Amino acid sequence: MTAGRWALLVEFDGSRFHGWQRQANALGVQTALEAGLAAVADAPVRVSGAGRTDAGVHALGMVAHFDAPVERPSGAWVRGTNTRLPAGLAVLDAGPVAADFDARRSATARTYVYRLLARPGRPALDEGRVAWLPRSLDVAAMAEGARHLEGEHNFSAFRAAGCQAGNPVRRVERVAVWSRGPEVWVAVRATAFLYNMVRIMVGSLLEVGLGRQGPDWIRTAREGGERGRAGPTARPEGLYFAAVHYPPELGAPEPPRTGPGGLDPAAF
Amino acid sequence: MTAGRWALLVEFDGSRFHGWQRQANALGVQTALEAGLAAVADAPVRVSGAGRTDAGVHALGMVAHFDAPVERPSGAWVRGTNTRLPAGLAVLDAGPVAADFDARRSATARTYVYRLLARPGRPALDEGRVAWLPRSLDVAAMAEGARHLEGEHNFSAFRAAGCQAGNPVRRVERVAVWSRGPEVWVAVRATAFLYNMVRIMVGSLLEVGLGRQGPDWIRTAREGGERGRAGPTARPEGLYFAAVHYPPELGAPEPPRTGPGGLDPAAF
Repeated sequence: MTAGRWALLVEFDGSRFHGWQRQANALGVQTALEAGLAAVADAPVRVSGAGRTDAGVHALGMVAHFDAPVERPSGAWVRGTNTRLPAGLAVLDAGPVAADFDARRSATARTYVYRLLARPGRPALDEGRVAWLPRSLDVAAMAEGARHLEGEHNFSAFRAAGCQAGNPVRRVERVAVWSRGPEVWVAVRATAFLYNMVRIMVGSLLEVGLGRQGPDWIRTAREGGERGRAGPTARPEGLYFAAVHYPPELGAPEPPRTGPGGLDPAAF
Repeated sequence: MTAGRWALLVEFDGSRFHGWQRQANALGVQTALEAGLAAVADAPVRVSGAGRTDAGVHALGMVAHFDAPVERPSGAWVRGTNTRLPAGLAVLDAGPVAADFDARRSATARTYVYRLLARPGRPALDEGRVAWLPRSLDVAAMAEGARHLEGEHNFSAFRAAGCQAGNPVRRVERVAVWSRGPEVWVAVRATAFLYNMVRIMVGSLLEVGLGRQGPDWIRTAREGGERGRAGPTARPEGLYFAAVHYPPELGAPEPPRTGPGGLDPAAF
């Protein structure tokens, strides 16, 4: 017996948590969120997220669902929960959804964005929220290389050893690389991702941006199909889980409209 | 006897320091910077900034000068100093300047930008780096009100009680208000500022944005000439010292080209 299923839009600073997932000895976002919701509900609450994120990875628009043990208005799930959450974690929106809505299974696509800062001086304001390179990057070459990551492909070369997905084929709907001054952004939208796929994509694009490989090497690496062919895994602190996309009729929370580099995660 | 005068471009996270100025019992940015430079020079160094900032106020492009006690290349003053600075403080650029260059007196204008986040959910990623309002703002009305802050005026209504300037007349070259989604930015460029002038301007524009006053009230408050006529002082955490502008022939470091809301502080 529940008071209905709800979906939440959640923002968090990954540097303050040991990833999304519930853990025994370290604070995961999920555990902190469940504690906040339980305080509002005065009863235990379990949340289920649209995806997992590693320690250090941030979220602008993670979506999670839960079955409310009590009736509460939307404002209580947003404002009431926020007063009980630790710094670095906030509920941005909450809305009732159908009982069969599933934050992960109902999603049709996800968007990630990666922030790079290419300049001699390290970041003072955005330390832990951007990946810093004391080098300049060839952004045009990165954008050219990124085209080889679009489409439906076997992405075996772009998944971490621990990836448990049975099928390495994924459909990448769009990859964009753009810059302003020393800041460079990479955004990727796909139906679903393999483990560490975006970070390995960015690590590979960096090989191109740093001039160690040409843009076509990205295709060669992808076609090679072995993890060793692609670039290293880019650091977690530059990565943002930006949006989860759902069919509009499900009534899931809208993704945030503002992201790094002027990105509109909802429209990407 | 010195090895010449140098100018530095400095970025800092104001939440980690008790303002710019040297202080007896709290860490000011100036003190931390001097310690880092002294470690590179292996001799005491005193720096002199283009302006002071209060505790909590950030800088994207503060400029400071110092007389180098030893010969060091530019890279040493940037990279060597950065390895010795605390988190939240970084040197972005360093270059030799004429012996009579003065970071404060040689400046022809300064640009500040203020970041507002107007949404129900508090900031998780940008806590301490944006001023949060759980309300919506009428940005068009704020922009209309901002026009009354441009030009050469007596800004007595927009200065804090502790302001020690003899002359309350300042020339405000430009005020811009723009937004994207829940984020709202106010940028102000002036030859010089009175104490807390930008924060009182923003606090006054918020009275308009929240619908408590009409846009013309800004002019009325300015013409009234008393601090009590204007709005409250906006919180420090939303304020960024974005750029110091110098005559190009002085060879001072260029302001950063990227700021909040897509601002180009160098071109504003």
